[in-house]
Amino acid sequence: MKEKLMKMLDERKDEMIKIRRFLHEYPELSFKEEKTAQYIADFYKGKDVEIQTNVGNGYGIIVTIKGGQPGKTIGLRADFDALPIVEEADVPFKSKNEGVMHACGHDGHTAYLLILADCLIQLKSELSGTIKIIHQHAEEVPPGGAKSIVESGLLDDLDEVFGIHLLPMGPAGTIAYNKGYAFNGRAYMKLKIQGRGGHGSSPHLANDAIVAGAHFVTAVQTVISRRLSPFDIGVITIGSFDGAGTFNVIKDSVVLEGDIRYMTVETKDTIEREVKRLVKGLEAEFDVQCDLTYTPDYPPLYNNPDLTEKVANVLKNANVKEFTDVKEVPPMAPSEDFAYYAEKFPACFFYIGCTPKGVEKPYFNHNPKFDIDEDALLVAAKAVGQVVCSMEG
Amino acid sequence: MKEKLMKMLDERKDEMIKIRRFLHEYPELSFKEEKTAQYIADFYKGKDVEIQTNVGNGYGIIVTIKGGQPGKTIGLRADFDALPIVEEADVPFKSKNEGVMHACGHDGHTAYLLILADCLIQLKSELSGTIKIIHQHAEEVPPGGAKSIVESGLLDDLDEVFGIHLLPMGPAGTIAYNKGYAFNGRAYMKLKIQGRGGHGSSPHLANDAIVAGAHFVTAVQTVISRRLSPFDIGVITIGSFDGAGTFNVIKDSVVLEGDIRYMTVETKDTIEREVKRLVKGLEAEFDVQCDLTYTPDYPPLYNNPDLTEKVANVLKNANVKEFTDVKEVPPMAPSEDFAYYAEKFPACFFYIGCTPKGVEKPYFNHNPKFDIDEDALLVAAKAVGQVVCSMEG
Amino acid sequence: MKEKLMKMLDERKDEMIKIRRFLHEYPELSFKEEKTAQYIADFYKGKDVEIQTNVGNGYGIIVTIKGGQPGKTIGLRADFDALPIVEEADVPFKSKNEGVMHACGHDGHTAYLLILADCLIQLKSELSGTIKIIHQHAEEVPPGGAKSIVESGLLDDLDEVFGIHLLPMGPAGTIAYNKGYAFNGRAYMKLKIQGRGGHGSSPHLANDAIVAGAHFVTAVQTVISRRLSPFDIGVITIGSFDGAGTFNVIKDSVVLEGDIRYMTVETKDTIEREVKRLVKGLEAEFDVQCDLTYTPDYPPLYNNPDLTEKVANVLKNANVKEFTDVKEVPPMAPSEDFAYYAEKFPACFFYIGCTPKGVEKPYFNHNPKFDIDEDALLVAAKAVGQVVCSMEG
Amino acid sequence: MKEKLMKMLDERKDEMIKIRRFLHEYPELSFKEEKTAQYIADFYKGKDVEIQTNVGNGYGIIVTIKGGQPGKTIGLRADFDALPIVEEADVPFKSKNEGVMHACGHDGHTAYLLILADCLIQLKSELSGTIKIIHQHAEEVPPGGAKSIVESGLLDDLDEVFGIHLLPMGPAGTIAYNKGYAFNGRAYMKLKIQGRGGHGSSPHLANDAIVAGAHFVTAVQTVISRRLSPFDIGVITIGSFDGAGTFNVIKDSVVLEGDIRYMTVETKDTIEREVKRLVKGLEAEFDVQCDLTYTPDYPPLYNNPDLTEKVANVLKNANVKEFTDVKEVPPMAPSEDFAYYAEKFPACFFYIGCTPKGVEKPYFNHNPKFDIDEDALLVAAKAVGQVVCSMEG
Repeated sequence: MKEKLMKMLDERKDEMIKIRRFLHEYPELSFKEEKTAQYIADFYKGKDVEIQTNVGNGYGIIVTIKGGQPGKTIGLRADFDALPIVEEADVPFKSKNEGVMHACGHDGHTAYLLILADCLIQLKSELSGTIKIIHQHAEEVPPGGAKSIVESGLLDDLDEVFGIHLLPMGPAGTIAYNKGYAFNGRAYMKLKIQGRGGHGSSPHLANDAIVAGAHFVTAVQTVISRRLSPFDIGVITIGSFDGAGTFNVIKDSVVLEGDIRYMTVETKDTIEREVKRLVKGLEAEFDVQCDLTYTPDYPPLYNNPDLTEKVANVLKNANVKEFTDVKEVPPMAPSEDFAYYAEKFPACFFYIGCTPKGVEKPYFNHNPKFDIDEDALLVAAKAVGQVVCSMEG
Repeated sequence: MKEKLMKMLDERKDEMIKIRRFLHEYPELSFKEEKTAQYIADFYKGKDVEIQTNVGNGYGIIVTIKGGQPGKTIGLRADFDALPIVEEADVPFKSKNEGVMHACGHDGHTAYLLILADCLIQLKSELSGTIKIIHQHAEEVPPGGAKSIVESGLLDDLDEVFGIHLLPMGPAGTIAYNKGYAFNGRAYMKLKIQGRGGHGSSPHLANDAIVAGAHFVTAVQTVISRRLSPFDIGVITIGSFDGAGTFNVIKDSVVLEGDIRYMTVETKDTIEREVKRLVKGLEAEFDVQCDLTYTPDYPPLYNNPDLTEKVANVLKNANVKEFTDVKEVPPMAPSEDFAYYAEKFPACFFYIGCTPKGVEKPYFNHNPKFDIDEDALLVAAKAVGQVVCSMEG
Repeated sequence: MKEKLMKMLDERKDEMIKIRRFLHEYPELSFKEEKTAQYIADFYKGKDVEIQTNVGNGYGIIVTIKGGQPGKTIGLRADFDALPIVEEADVPFKSKNEGVMHACGHDGHTAYLLILADCLIQLKSELSGTIKIIHQHAEEVPPGGAKSIVESGLLDDLDEVFGIHLLPMGPAGTIAYNKGYAFNGRAYMKLKIQGRGGHGSSPHLANDAIVAGAHFVTAVQTVISRRLSPFDIGVITIGSFDGAGTFNVIKDSVVLEGDIRYMTVETKDTIEREVKRLVKGLEAEFDVQCDLTYTPDYPPLYNNPDLTEKVANVLKNANVKEFTDVKEVPPMAPSEDFAYYAEKFPACFFYIGCTPKGVEKPYFNHNPKFDIDEDALLVAAKAVGQVVCSMEG
Repeated sequence: MKEKLMKMLDERKDEMIKIRRFLHEYPELSFKEEKTAQYIADFYKGKDVEIQTNVGNGYGIIVTIKGGQPGKTIGLRADFDALPIVEEADVPFKSKNEGVMHACGHDGHTAYLLILADCLIQLKSELSGTIKIIHQHAEEVPPGGAKSIVESGLLDDLDEVFGIHLLPMGPAGTIAYNKGYAFNGRAYMKLKIQGRGGHGSSPHLANDAIVAGAHFVTAVQTVISRRLSPFDIGVITIGSFDGAGTFNVIKDSVVLEGDIRYMTVETKDTIEREVKRLVKGLEAEFDVQCDLTYTPDYPPLYNNPDLTEKVANVLKNANVKEFTDVKEVPPMAPSEDFAYYAEKFPACFFYIGCTPKGVEKPYFNHNPKFDIDEDALLVAAKAVGQVVCSMEG
């Protein structure tokens, strides 16, 4: 079956590209992907699959392909939302929705997976187990779509789940993976510090919120420098210190907002605990009232090491001519809501190189000039196809 | 002459009140007191005095009364600008310039001094020396009017200068003074800290201006706590920390604004030197670029102790029935541009109680409900009159 | 009686000096003034007075002189302890107790008061009211002698209490006073911060006490800079940060010791409250255990303003040729346990100039070369004598 | 030859243990290993090798074994110094040098390498290339022995260099490795901050070194939290803050000592640059004089990834029954002066499990109760032997 599948994919390469370009022209923002979802649903119309739409907190779609042979239940996920970016890439299929752009490659993710799904449907009778195609909405904006899809219960029978991301980390043909923690988890914090205003000449009659805020910023550095193992990965950025006021009026309150990143659940917990501790301490120290919102959103993405090792071996030994380089890479700073699937099921999320041909310093994801080598779509389809075929046993 | 003067003032008490109410109805903002200045100039029209208008950086007026007898040259100053406050006092002569209010008593200052000046003009032949009546614009807004009037050179021959302020620190009849430093000096600072923006996940590629700003706020406290004598008076308030931004973007720059207060020239110099030192150090420590604006405006107001002692004795022994309480009081937090006269000439600036009758907790100057007991105008006129008559020798 | 007293004092000037020199040769440390106390008690032997020894927590002595006329009960206090200083003054009556020195003028205080007391005893029949002579031990070392003498109850009937201090603030003949708060109050603090030790490479397994201690030092500055009125006087000095350890071992605990100064009871309370608040906050912020000892010792010394005004007028109008300059001076940094009397009774503590003749920059109290102009003793005796005679009414 | 070597090692297992026990009984401190060096030199006496003693800054020994066949020049390093620890392990061959202990396994390193060297000497004619046996002194105490041995030039012809460390990270038979950076580099810092002493009541006349020191401790946290990539490994521990003094005396100077750790040369450079920047900034900010000693000692240890991959494959495919588990492990916190060899030559340093049989929670290196399973010596000898035989081509 594996060879048949590879051949079918070869034949439908152009179709993948066509779909990707269509999606690229009509990008939709997270949680607003109505037409994209309709397009996807239409694609499956008339095919011999079960399809669920409006899954989770948005336009999520789950397509279930029941194989003719016994076997595992495997999830394949592709996200389909776009970003609020004005496209600057010079392509003929430029975004027609001004201010919205598929600058993160989700158009490609969806395109390859539609074709791969269609091929698997055609090969159903030979297929072992069940494939659940997860077309996911709203990856870009917390709380994201993944969490709600997992919570829908529709995936409860998954044995394994896979996903890929197009990244310009090498030419099409490069496939990269990372065992264990791969993408950062992330939390958002907002801290309102309420002191008491007053005239600049009379500090004793007021309670200076700027001074308290400054002490918080200074103290919170120690969470990273002294509370984490040097081998842990953690960042706290206070990106906003909103304390604008009148120069000679003691500021009554300030609002700080911050971004927290971490690579393991332990680090996540440590930082959350210590930030909360500091806030309590700040209240006690400066007699201010603190109102803290601390919202972890995407967890760190954990690739099951055994499963990833298995995937790596499958890809290395696949004997697919498009796979020019399969390699391990270090963990990365961004966050991904694929992490929610990986929290619940053994998972492997890997990367498909897509640096445009002839480009040395490609624009990265989220850049208004982001572009891909569309050959990467076939690589993605074949890589995931290989994995599906090999997981059966 | 002293008795004649007292009697004349008694007779013109109602006129003072009338003038004060008129001015109260037509308040004008600092540097925009065109009509007020015209009103004052008109008052002197036809009188045997020298009058200079448009003195200094605004509508300042100097009226010179040459006495028939030899003697000192003495300045008497009253300010005439109003504040951007919507009046809430319930008086029949409420401000007719919506949003502008004589909430600091300058209407009263001007009213008493016009009448006192007129009386002195009438008594010219008996008068020893020269009186320079200084009707000053723009006391409320730095750089103020005083500095430019002093710099005009028109007062260079002053031997002494006097001023009063209406303060609801006691009923009309209360006169208060303070030897030595009496009112705070003041500086304004604005500090732009330029770091380098970046993504919240990658602090090493950016240079966090919020962290540098927080360290500045923390460190600048030591200027007050460790650089001043405990007997010095000094305050630094950072009233504005403008660092609003996006929670997950490292802030590229922040702007801090602050208010600095001090009671002596030495403290002024110490704070300025140490703040500048800290800013230099901040640049070195955090590799940021700092752009500091540090503008001292009004200096601390220094009452010549001997002259003030003399004034106090004159008032205590004046045998004027309206003077019910003459007392020394401690220095005060606000600033006054009378300080510029006092920098150059032996000066005494004292306070005339004006708490409305029957009021226990009066609204203070700058309050939208500020009001005075108009009896205080006669007290002011008589007090300054007594001083003028006694300084002659 | 006043004139008689002045004449008697004139006659006994040499005796004062003799006594002072004797005491100077045999100084004794605070709480160890056994022989000095015996010397004083012996002085009164056979005189018609009531004498109580071993008053309070040491060698305090109270001598009660009951006048023949009705009147107030007035306390006169002189302290008699010396300092652990090796004398370097070049005087013929140098200390014979190596390492102990009357470097604060208490020898002179005692000498003048013994003679004044003796004169008053002789004038008893003419004397109005009662005089309580307070020879106080242990002024130099907290908790001092004054507090315990006050608590003995033996002074409960005092109407007023007076004391003086020899200070080289001018030549003998200078008398200085200060209405209201005059000398600083003082507290001692010791803060042990208990973290958890560990290896330098593993901060997450430890809890760095040096980091917590540094944050305390930084934060405590704000008590002075932001919690006090700029017109308040307050200092916090952390004089000891005991955190010596091994460079690559995370420090488990540090001990900080500090000195706190203030000029009013309100400031005393504010600082104590805020330091304790900070310590609580530090525990919460850094998860450390803090053990704080905070011990106020001498309170700020408060001169009753009316009484001081009265004393000033008495001295200014005394017509005593030795009183060459009677003037008001600002408050001072040191502390004095006379403050305990002044907490309970209307009090006035004033200064007797004692700069040695011909000396421009005198050594100050507590300097190993401290010396006085002994003419100051007569000035002291006459000044206090004048006060006693005038308080009668 | 490989099989012969394995067999010879099997036969000499007991001898290794005997040597190890002998060395264990007579441990010597770093730079003082006179007898140990003599013992080693004696071992080679009469053997057909070139031997250099007193190499580098101590008792280093290099033994050159010239093979009969052409090939690479390969270094094998074992360290032989002990630690200033009172042994608490309950073994019959306990240290006979009270207070000195082979608590880091260097006795075992030396023992296995002596026997392996002897076997290689016997197999000389079959041996390809040249083996340089490096018996290194003084690994435990910076500046260590390695740097000086490298600088001696005697190793300039090395193609590759290998070393092992006994670690109780698994039972004998466990072999672990780590590609790329493996052990932390380390620097020592000492910072004297010179302010100006003074009395606690007069901060303005002094310059508080404790306040400046506290600000440094607070600010230096940002080097870790904001100057490094979250994927970098770095620690700064200020282990000593020597600021003990008198509570009411402003401290004139403090001395801080610290330990800095990092995993890459880039991180090393960043931290050094930023600490120096902060110190400059501190001087500017607080007007103090800083005297900074910043001494990097051992660099991060870098295992050449290709060479390590090769070693890993050799060991995995060795078919040696004692090799029960060959696995990759993450980098570690300690430092090792093997890093100096690895700076200059392609190197691989790997770990030999030595957890005593039946022990679940073994005592780690540097613990007074540290002990090893002596079976690990044969594992070490065979592992390094396998590597030597395989590197030939």
